[in-house]
Amino acid sequence: MRCHCHVCSLPGRVLGIRAARLSLALVLALLLVAGALTTFLPSNRDDEVLELRRAAKPQGRLVRDAFTLVMQTYNRTDLLLRLLNHYQALPRLHRVIVVWNNVGEKAPEDVWNSLGPHPVPVVFKLQTTNRMRNRLQNFPELETEAVLMVDDDMLISAQDIAFAFSVWQQFPDQIVGFVPRKHVSTSSGIYSYGGFELQAPGLGDGDQYSLVLIGASFFSRKYLDLFQRQPTAVHALIDETQNCDDIAMNFLVAKHIGRASGVFVKPVNMGSLEKESTGGHSGMWHRAEHFLQRSYCLNKLVAIYDGMPLTYSNIMISQFGFPYANHKSKA
Amino acid sequence: MRCHCHVCSLPGRVLGIRAARLSLALVLALLLVAGALTTFLPSNRDDEVLELRRAAKPQGRLVRDAFTLVMQTYNRTDLLLRLLNHYQALPRLHRVIVVWNNVGEKAPEDVWNSLGPHPVPVVFKLQTTNRMRNRLQNFPELETEAVLMVDDDMLISAQDIAFAFSVWQQFPDQIVGFVPRKHVSTSSGIYSYGGFELQAPGLGDGDQYSLVLIGASFFSRKYLDLFQRQPTAVHALIDETQNCDDIAMNFLVAKHIGRASGVFVKPVNMGSLEKESTGGHSGMWHRAEHFLQRSYCLNKLVAIYDGMPLTYSNIMISQFGFPYANHKSKA
Repeated sequence: MRCHCHVCSLPGRVLGIRAARLSLALVLALLLVAGALTTFLPSNRDDEVLELRRAAKPQGRLVRDAFTLVMQTYNRTDLLLRLLNHYQALPRLHRVIVVWNNVGEKAPEDVWNSLGPHPVPVVFKLQTTNRMRNRLQNFPELETEAVLMVDDDMLISAQDIAFAFSVWQQFPDQIVGFVPRKHVSTSSGIYSYGGFELQAPGLGDGDQYSLVLIGASFFSRKYLDLFQRQPTAVHALIDETQNCDDIAMNFLVAKHIGRASGVFVKPVNMGSLEKESTGGHSGMWHRAEHFLQRSYCLNKLVAIYDGMPLTYSNIMISQFGFPYANHKSKA
Repeated sequence: MRCHCHVCSLPGRVLGIRAARLSLALVLALLLVAGALTTFLPSNRDDEVLELRRAAKPQGRLVRDAFTLVMQTYNRTDLLLRLLNHYQALPRLHRVIVVWNNVGEKAPEDVWNSLGPHPVPVVFKLQTTNRMRNRLQNFPELETEAVLMVDDDMLISAQDIAFAFSVWQQFPDQIVGFVPRKHVSTSSGIYSYGGFELQAPGLGDGDQYSLVLIGASFFSRKYLDLFQRQPTAVHALIDETQNCDDIAMNFLVAKHIGRASGVFVKPVNMGSLEKESTGGHSGMWHRAEHFLQRSYCLNKLVAIYDGMPLTYSNIMISQFGFPYANHKSKA
């Protein structure tokens, strides 16, 4: 054996220890590198969810088995209080967060408290500006993974809500809700917005939807966080139009998961109480420009995101056997 | 530095080389171990699916975008031929496999060929015994991942089939079909079988189903393979009753995926042609003992599998906008 390395000139016993130390050092170094490399393993989505659970689980039990109602309100306190009486009794409701957009006006906490006790706590979040996107904040009082977001004039039956919550638990990455809408693209490349009366995109029989409106839906709280981290231009667009927060949410969900943003659950008993409001706000959608704004927002968001992330779905989910025998035709 | 190892007595240059070689050997050994350890990384379900695709993809293109119709037939050749004329024209149909249970009788290949050309190939698989489970073989002619299994008296509209196929593509691990059934457990612990008229298991409003019958459904071909590998007692039970192959399939799927075996798609236009058969077989379900057998099979299978793997679901899927405006109540 020839040896050309300089160490060969050192005494035998020193080299023996050096060989052992060198090997040990190499082993340790390799282990450290291997350990560091594990951070590059693809993170399993389930791991992300578990991370989210561990992070957001102050009480330890509630994260997937209960939900928080977030209801934004403006100038419709009569409807609000009527709806609170209805929603407060929902099974699996953890808490109600009322986003109080009546700037400068006292929240009805006194009335609420004087008519207690109540099944669940209600928190009134007084806002400093009357903004449509106020309801998309990541409120610290939000302790469940699921958010039930309802407009302050929508009465949705408890049966519909219980079922939709169970559906959300099976599709936790999507907006599971009761109001489907769609976009269509035209030969000019300009997008337009509408409901089922708008021509279907031509993907076979029947219709398609590409958005589920958030004002009657379940979605994961992580999307509130994600919304806050969207480009300022998105927030500015919503502020400019006082509209389109739901379109923006559908964009970010679709972009995040790479498939349809929502799952439509057909409501059995749901309606607007708008007409029953005495002298209150008549609703944003009555503004002349409301629907043109929706199409405008589609195209603005496509420009901001440099692409159209919304995709189509034609899945309509109903509750088997509710109403009775609804699996039969014409039921 | 003291050295107590025997190598210290060797000449210097030899130890230098030995140190280098030892380090190199250690490095290589560690890399080999690390490489071997990667096989223990959790295998992503997507990877499994890709494996399946690669394994089952002789033509390279067809595995998830087309399906194979498997239709077993006994003594109802008039209905069979009528149905073949209907099903042969389905979009995305790859091939038809007719499981010919008329033992000793010539298959109608001459008639079929003389009335060609046909949109897709049909293969007649002549059976040597008239067994219910003949249709659950892993036929070599099966080149798609999806199997559409239809009883030889069921006329399902092309629209329903196209939609159900698209739903199966979103739920490829489950039996996606048009006929839901359920089991119930009673206070005695004995299980019983039935439809929507059987009392719901009491899990909230509405009904639940725990089986989707395979005779009008899509499922993955891997379940044919899995069925063949079930305990002999399962095959014997099906042979004994000439029944319950679908119950057995639901058991094995539920056991395999640990959740509900099936997804119910509400058919818009589906019906049995049984009454229109001239002098043919009247259908197994007319036998006096047929339904009692179904309950019997439930309890036998629970004994074989040492537990009840079926779980409940109340998800009913319909095609949004087909028929037009079906998202509205009473549509």
